[in-house]
Amino acid sequence: MSAIKKLLGHVQADIEKIDEIMRADIDRLAANMDKRLLDVLHYGLFGGGKRFRPLLAVISGRLCGGPDESAYRLAVAFEYLHMATLLHDDVIDQAETRRGRPSVVSAYGVTAAILGGDFLHALSMELIGRYGGTAALSIFCEATRAMVDGEFIQLRNSSRYNQSEDDYFKAIEGKTAVLISAATEIGALCGGADPRQQLALKEYGRNLGFGFQIIDDLLDYQGDAKLTGKAVGNDLAEGKMTLPLILAMDQADDRQRQHIHALLADTDRRRSSFETVYAFIEENDGFARAHRRASQCILRAREHLTLFSAGEKKDVEILAGLAEYALYRQK
Amino acid sequence: MSAIKKLLGHVQADIEKIDEIMRADIDRLAANMDKRLLDVLHYGLFGGGKRFRPLLAVISGRLCGGPDESAYRLAVAFEYLHMATLLHDDVIDQAETRRGRPSVVSAYGVTAAILGGDFLHALSMELIGRYGGTAALSIFCEATRAMVDGEFIQLRNSSRYNQSEDDYFKAIEGKTAVLISAATEIGALCGGADPRQQLALKEYGRNLGFGFQIIDDLLDYQGDAKLTGKAVGNDLAEGKMTLPLILAMDQADDRQRQHIHALLADTDRRRSSFETVYAFIEENDGFARAHRRASQCILRAREHLTLFSAGEKKDVEILAGLAEYALYRQK
Repeated sequence: MSAIKKLLGHVQADIEKIDEIMRADIDRLAANMDKRLLDVLHYGLFGGGKRFRPLLAVISGRLCGGPDESAYRLAVAFEYLHMATLLHDDVIDQAETRRGRPSVVSAYGVTAAILGGDFLHALSMELIGRYGGTAALSIFCEATRAMVDGEFIQLRNSSRYNQSEDDYFKAIEGKTAVLISAATEIGALCGGADPRQQLALKEYGRNLGFGFQIIDDLLDYQGDAKLTGKAVGNDLAEGKMTLPLILAMDQADDRQRQHIHALLADTDRRRSSFETVYAFIEENDGFARAHRRASQCILRAREHLTLFSAGEKKDVEILAGLAEYALYRQK
Repeated sequence: MSAIKKLLGHVQADIEKIDEIMRADIDRLAANMDKRLLDVLHYGLFGGGKRFRPLLAVISGRLCGGPDESAYRLAVAFEYLHMATLLHDDVIDQAETRRGRPSVVSAYGVTAAILGGDFLHALSMELIGRYGGTAALSIFCEATRAMVDGEFIQLRNSSRYNQSEDDYFKAIEGKTAVLISAATEIGALCGGADPRQQLALKEYGRNLGFGFQIIDDLLDYQGDAKLTGKAVGNDLAEGKMTLPLILAMDQADDRQRQHIHALLADTDRRRSSFETVYAFIEENDGFARAHRRASQCILRAREHLTLFSAGEKKDVEILAGLAEYALYRQK
């Protein structure tokens, strides 16, 4: 972990610059903005957040020859779009908390959460168009549409308890991987990448996104609420099949599987079944196997970096380090 | 009215082409789309709708020298964004019907309505970027943000019963005028307008938007449900002060005003107070005066067309006719 800490030290200046630009964006728009909308944006954008996506965009750009100042102005769009989806997701899931405090929808209501999301959505698209041009905008909008499609897949899956690993990967591709790969691909494109570099960074981001989401889903079972800012067991309570459970089901015998199906189908008892389901996953090696899958994704992500072996050593190490961070993070 | 009918005959081919392109867009995307998402989009997009905004974009473009085929591909973005805002508005207002049948949120649920809106949002931005370039995208995204801001203004106004005409115009600027003026301005820009033409068509659209919304608000009191597809009295039931009521309040004496304030403040009784409030508005000349305001806006819209006196006679007449239509429409 101390190697990762050191690595994060290297990107501290980038993160600060990203934050600075976000604050300047909102300040610039504040004059023509209702006070309550401004409050919602401040609350949503500046209450934590790792700035993971904009950081990936900036470093991907630098690796390909950039960035100038505009790379940062472009990069923040990924944080805005990410926040827009969180605002809408929390309305959809009726989530009460986010990052250890009331979600926007709890604190400001449904209207504010929907409209705040729409505002950030439009802002993100405008910035991508302005600083990235239409090629970047196409990738970005296509990613947004794929995210929506992924949510519909998840919705369809939510009443199916016999999901395969394939179903899971399809859903998390839309949920997480497409936006992260859009960040690295667009970052690369705007940094002046050649087509091979652009593809490599896109694939790096995509595999990183898979690994990132698998860890997220593991943390929903095994995380420390003090670090993650949210209680465990939410996915289970919502009846969401995530990878640890899917892999455990795969390993279990018919009797066990039927027992778990029955627990999942009983909406009211899902939350109180947490210990039982946890033990079932443990017994059937679901956590360890899911972690192995995440490792494989992160390894694949790192393999796509081999293209950038010469010259740009430091940024390659940072991207490799961020991939490791995604794997070992505890929040 | 028969002059308007004749005029609408002239644009029938444009409307058909707009519909055709919308259908082709959705068909093209259908292969990578969850079936339920596809249903939501079909239901939302092809269940009526006047295609007023794309039509204005196409004709504004033609007036300035365009359009080629791409003008239509750009124009449909205005219908997508419009539909996206309707989907989200109906979630916010918990509206059960839209265009004479269940709203998307009633028919498919909150999740589908929010995500369907997000999908159309992203699609619209992509098309504007691709066919209009970054200048058009900036106008479009700024309009979207102004629409959100307008909703927040409306939210803030919703518990204030002493609104002025100014408050009202500020709110409907965001609610309606900015998107219509973005349609005419971007249409003009992409048709090759010079800066004076672009400004004239922007202002035409803005004033048309004001007139259009005032009529909408009048129809909420006086419309025929069989034509509008919705019951009267929704604004009042939600405690929304619209122009007829604002102007009537302005005319009334203190005692009357206090009586109406008390009715508005009583959430449960608002709907049943419809007849009383209607009579109050009538008595204080609110309907006639609101209609006069709408006429003035439409007149102002038409004045901005004088720039295009020579040569392009037919399209000028169509735009003038559409402005008249906005004033005399019954749905």
